[in-house]
Amino acid sequence: MEESKKPFCIVIHGGAGTILKSLMTEQKEKEYKSGLKAALDAGYQILEKGGSSLDAVEAAVSALEDFPLFNAGKGAVFTNKGTHEMDASIMDGSNLEAGAVSGISHVKNPVQFARVIKEKSGHVFLSGQDAENYAQTMGLKLEDDSYFYEAGRYKQWQDVKDSDSYQLDHSDKQETGEKKFGTVGAVALDMNGNISAATSTGGMTNKKYGRVGDTPMIGAGTYANNKTCAVSCTGHGEYFIRAVVAYDVSCLMEYKGLNLNDACEEVVNKKLVELGGEGGLVALDAKGNICMSFNSEGMYRGFKHSENGEQIEIYR
Amino acid sequence: MEESKKPFCIVIHGGAGTILKSLMTEQKEKEYKSGLKAALDAGYQILEKGGSSLDAVEAAVSALEDFPLFNAGKGAVFTNKGTHEMDASIMDGSNLEAGAVSGISHVKNPVQFARVIKEKSGHVFLSGQDAENYAQTMGLKLEDDSYFYEAGRYKQWQDVKDSDSYQLDHSDKQETGEKKFGTVGAVALDMNGNISAATSTGGMTNKKYGRVGDTPMIGAGTYANNKTCAVSCTGHGEYFIRAVVAYDVSCLMEYKGLNLNDACEEVVNKKLVELGGEGGLVALDAKGNICMSFNSEGMYRGFKHSENGEQIEIYR
Repeated sequence: MEESKKPFCIVIHGGAGTILKSLMTEQKEKEYKSGLKAALDAGYQILEKGGSSLDAVEAAVSALEDFPLFNAGKGAVFTNKGTHEMDASIMDGSNLEAGAVSGISHVKNPVQFARVIKEKSGHVFLSGQDAENYAQTMGLKLEDDSYFYEAGRYKQWQDVKDSDSYQLDHSDKQETGEKKFGTVGAVALDMNGNISAATSTGGMTNKKYGRVGDTPMIGAGTYANNKTCAVSCTGHGEYFIRAVVAYDVSCLMEYKGLNLNDACEEVVNKKLVELGGEGGLVALDAKGNICMSFNSEGMYRGFKHSENGEQIEIYR
Repeated sequence: MEESKKPFCIVIHGGAGTILKSLMTEQKEKEYKSGLKAALDAGYQILEKGGSSLDAVEAAVSALEDFPLFNAGKGAVFTNKGTHEMDASIMDGSNLEAGAVSGISHVKNPVQFARVIKEKSGHVFLSGQDAENYAQTMGLKLEDDSYFYEAGRYKQWQDVKDSDSYQLDHSDKQETGEKKFGTVGAVALDMNGNISAATSTGGMTNKKYGRVGDTPMIGAGTYANNKTCAVSCTGHGEYFIRAVVAYDVSCLMEYKGLNLNDACEEVVNKKLVELGGEGGLVALDAKGNICMSFNSEGMYRGFKHSENGEQIEIYR
């Protein structure tokens, strides 16, 4: 049957940065990998049963949000005020519909709220306390501050909270040069040939001023279009915004005829490097090609593909 | 002298929409045109003296913000809570540096704050009350709610405030079908061949949930790159976000080799129309070509060009 031969797959990331093997314990590595594995499985199970790529990326990112070692949902980093401010977005490549949210503090799964925004609000992008009130109205699961607490994150914040510095990473090894961009994300292709992307983050440790990164910005941190690709980014958000990274990959494919891999490499390992922007992305196209590009030391990442098996990696 | 022959120019808009001559009084038309003229002059004077395109777009957009008939700064529309929530962004095409802000209520000139964010904050995008606190720290001029009050806008809000409806326009003629997207913006080219873009808005009348449109989103509402073009958009922001409008124009030029006019027309009168997105944009390139594209009935717009004179228009 022709139908049964259509590839489907999911690709995820749990953040990029200076992730050095020498600084990782075997136990910690195992934990990270188990978090990635759980997210891959959550998304893949949906695809396998004929579910949509949109459901798959939502499930995978929700799993990453629920996993405390990644900087999104439970385990989000602390702002300068000791609060959590989370951002997320999701995009459906079959119709270019999108939802995004920034600066919410108590929604358990920001990516699920981004999807509700996409489908129910009549808008694309909501922000702040008013957005959170809307989440409550829409029946999203809210949690107290304590739910998001993670001891490592708290220590990280305590280390810098009286300073003017902020951390773009979710590392407590700043002094050793370890630097991680703790965004999570997923892209998926379903049996119907539809692709989707989703991204979620807790932002930067000790961040001030209501800073917003690339994660909730459609075109920068997240983009999906069946014609070209689905992309989810992680990295130094300011550079990803200025370079409109996710949509740039799409345009290089659509207008310049590059294949997925060349487009991702051009953006991540040439344009972003020239601009000074550290990070990476995961991407795929509707034919089932996948790409995991990064210009940093490492990126928590993995894929599960109906034809090419499964892989989970951390280092270069 | 070769130098003296280099063209310089500024192009501005004061919003697009269903602006019908039959609904406009002669007096009102004169007022709108005087507001556009003042903004063009403010920007052009800077260019003429050899100033930067960045200073020129900041000055022009500040003038539009100060002019109460446009929905930005003074005269911003009312939210569902009877407050003002303003967004703005600015981008320098010579180095791709950018600043953006959303959801601020008391900064007199949001575009000036966007520039401060670009140059002083270490970030690109700030949002909400924390951003406003930062504005105060940085010495930006703040105003009471009463400063932003404009009688026409208040009436407009009163008409819909007890309903669930919101208006994407700043019109009090909803019943007659008049619909205006009251964003303001400017793009400029200076004698040194550098181009910049800036955009500012008061959002939608009666808006809820902390909705954010395309105006503060680099790549969607605003983009500038010396290599391609500077673009400032106005319209139904949700569609402009999904279509990543401003950066799309740039990519069509850079990757597909389209000229400025063809790129703008492709995006505004083809891609946006197919998606259902109403609005328009102003754009220019580093050679001094300009474009004012819209798919709505009208757009408040004008340009002043060192070689091609001055023009101010409202209708198609």
